[in-house]
Amino acid sequence: MKKLVDDPANAVTDSLAGFALAHADTVAVHGIDPSTLARTGPVYATRKQPAPHGTVAVISGGGSGHEPLHIGFIGEGMLDAAVPGPMFTSPTPDCIYEAIRAAHAGAGVLLIVKNYTGDVLNFDMAADLAADDGIAVRTVIVEDDVAVENSLHTIGRRGVAGTLLVEKIAGAAAARGDCLDDVAAVAQHVIDNVRSMGVALTPCTVPQIGRPSFDLPADEIEIGIGIHGEPGRYRAPVAPASTITRDILDPVIADLRVNDGEKVLLYVNGMGATPLSELYIIYGAARRLCDERGIIVDRSLVGDYVTSLEMQGASVTLLRLDDELTALWDAPVNTVTLAW
Amino acid sequence: MKKLVDDPANAVTDSLAGFALAHADTVAVHGIDPSTLARTGPVYATRKQPAPHGTVAVISGGGSGHEPLHIGFIGEGMLDAAVPGPMFTSPTPDCIYEAIRAAHAGAGVLLIVKNYTGDVLNFDMAADLAADDGIAVRTVIVEDDVAVENSLHTIGRRGVAGTLLVEKIAGAAAARGDCLDDVAAVAQHVIDNVRSMGVALTPCTVPQIGRPSFDLPADEIEIGIGIHGEPGRYRAPVAPASTITRDILDPVIADLRVNDGEKVLLYVNGMGATPLSELYIIYGAARRLCDERGIIVDRSLVGDYVTSLEMQGASVTLLRLDDELTALWDAPVNTVTLAW
Repeated sequence: MKKLVDDPANAVTDSLAGFALAHADTVAVHGIDPSTLARTGPVYATRKQPAPHGTVAVISGGGSGHEPLHIGFIGEGMLDAAVPGPMFTSPTPDCIYEAIRAAHAGAGVLLIVKNYTGDVLNFDMAADLAADDGIAVRTVIVEDDVAVENSLHTIGRRGVAGTLLVEKIAGAAAARGDCLDDVAAVAQHVIDNVRSMGVALTPCTVPQIGRPSFDLPADEIEIGIGIHGEPGRYRAPVAPASTITRDILDPVIADLRVNDGEKVLLYVNGMGATPLSELYIIYGAARRLCDERGIIVDRSLVGDYVTSLEMQGASVTLLRLDDELTALWDAPVNTVTLAW
Repeated sequence: MKKLVDDPANAVTDSLAGFALAHADTVAVHGIDPSTLARTGPVYATRKQPAPHGTVAVISGGGSGHEPLHIGFIGEGMLDAAVPGPMFTSPTPDCIYEAIRAAHAGAGVLLIVKNYTGDVLNFDMAADLAADDGIAVRTVIVEDDVAVENSLHTIGRRGVAGTLLVEKIAGAAAARGDCLDDVAAVAQHVIDNVRSMGVALTPCTVPQIGRPSFDLPADEIEIGIGIHGEPGRYRAPVAPASTITRDILDPVIADLRVNDGEKVLLYVNGMGATPLSELYIIYGAARRLCDERGIIVDRSLVGDYVTSLEMQGASVTLLRLDDELTALWDAPVNTVTLAW
């Protein structure tokens, strides 16, 4: 295994310590001493400068290994806190609970949870603990992956790249002062209108495991892969980018039932090891397919946002836009990763 | 070869077409029809909204395959134009010349060139052509890589990750209205105070070539690698991240002669396929080394900015800061990749 890690067992902690040092002006990482790298308590991260009192707190989290999701999205106009678990493993309820208590600003908390059994269970337990403290908590479950139902680790559909869009738009709604019910409603509205599908060219290796998460022959790709290397819909021979793009975008269009003349946000996400130049090739191919089908691409995003360590591959996501979602997408955001 | 490309011979053009479509609101790509993917003339990219007349234009460019460098840095407070060549190959003088003519806003042009023989030659020829048109052109050569002198493709030191810092700071000087001599002087001041060194864990594959640029055994890494996979200083067994970080950072500190109590910008750059979590492990290790040596890390940057396609690896860069450079680094920037 070739990885830039020290003790593989401490990869997540060591990485969070580096993140804390690099972004100490905007983000606070709790539960790790960045000098000694020791764990000192429940691990979670918050905005250095909390949102004003009376604002709904928006929190997400999940297994590590998908960076910049979620820690890179902490900041004004997006997340108030994020809870990074062990690599590809849900954070424990105590960490989520402490994040809720730390981020709560008197107006309730929205939890944005990707649909994996462990995450759903642990966020639910933390929400119950917080409710016992009198904190109003609402939860939305992201399940944008159209590839498969009832995969490894998941009942129903998996939550993948679309999670970023839910976090951005819910964060914008909270920042403008919406109440908890309204922030939860707009987050659910995004979830109802966002779909994704991905492809993997190579597997990835969790440091503590030390071997690739699955085998993929040199001449095959996996269509419909999950962000932990869960099996997809099928394996196919290596194909041109425009063919692969069609094979992952058409199921998204079909499932979302996008009609001729509707506006969408088109988002091409890299899995971690795909050159940015190739993501733009996928974007161009997706854009031409949308044009052919009369779908109006009104907003765009291209980059490595919801990754799977050093997996090569990409996903395409469509979000059906209306004026409300467009305005919230365009609203100012100031995080380590997204800023405008 | 597993890559998300259509015809490997058209990978750069197809990618630029996608980039043009994704960022049509802020960047204009010239010489490619994004609908037909056909080349229609010299290829270069400019700000959609040019800088005010009377502002120095800052232009960079070089072989493609290092994205987001340079096209991702076009925008307010950074580059006015960028000239992407074929993969790992210098753009031709006609493209550079057209970019100069398009970006010139009446106050002269600064060319920021990475020190590779082909780039230096072609930017020089373009500068001569522009001078014949009466455009004042100055050129600075970035040569921040301390690893080797007189490498493949280069006489002297190579220009690598530090190029981003030159572009950001020169762009900020131009944006505040500095004259050409002053913008060139501050760019040279950055070059005089910036040093980098990198490590590769794996090679990368140029689409048109179809095989890895070099072989690296499964248990070895290359210390001092160039951004095109040029040989480094030596090969070493796979080692812990903190050991590797010391092996690439100590030569940087020694060469830059950073003294106890001096302030620096610490910048960890990913080569393309390194998980972001690992870049933060490198950052943390580098930060602790700086602390031990009494070097004050006053600004930080971590991410994939100057890449080598899907190479796994990273580089560390130090820029010695003074008040002037710090203020220009902090100045507002609004590009596809960097924004604050």
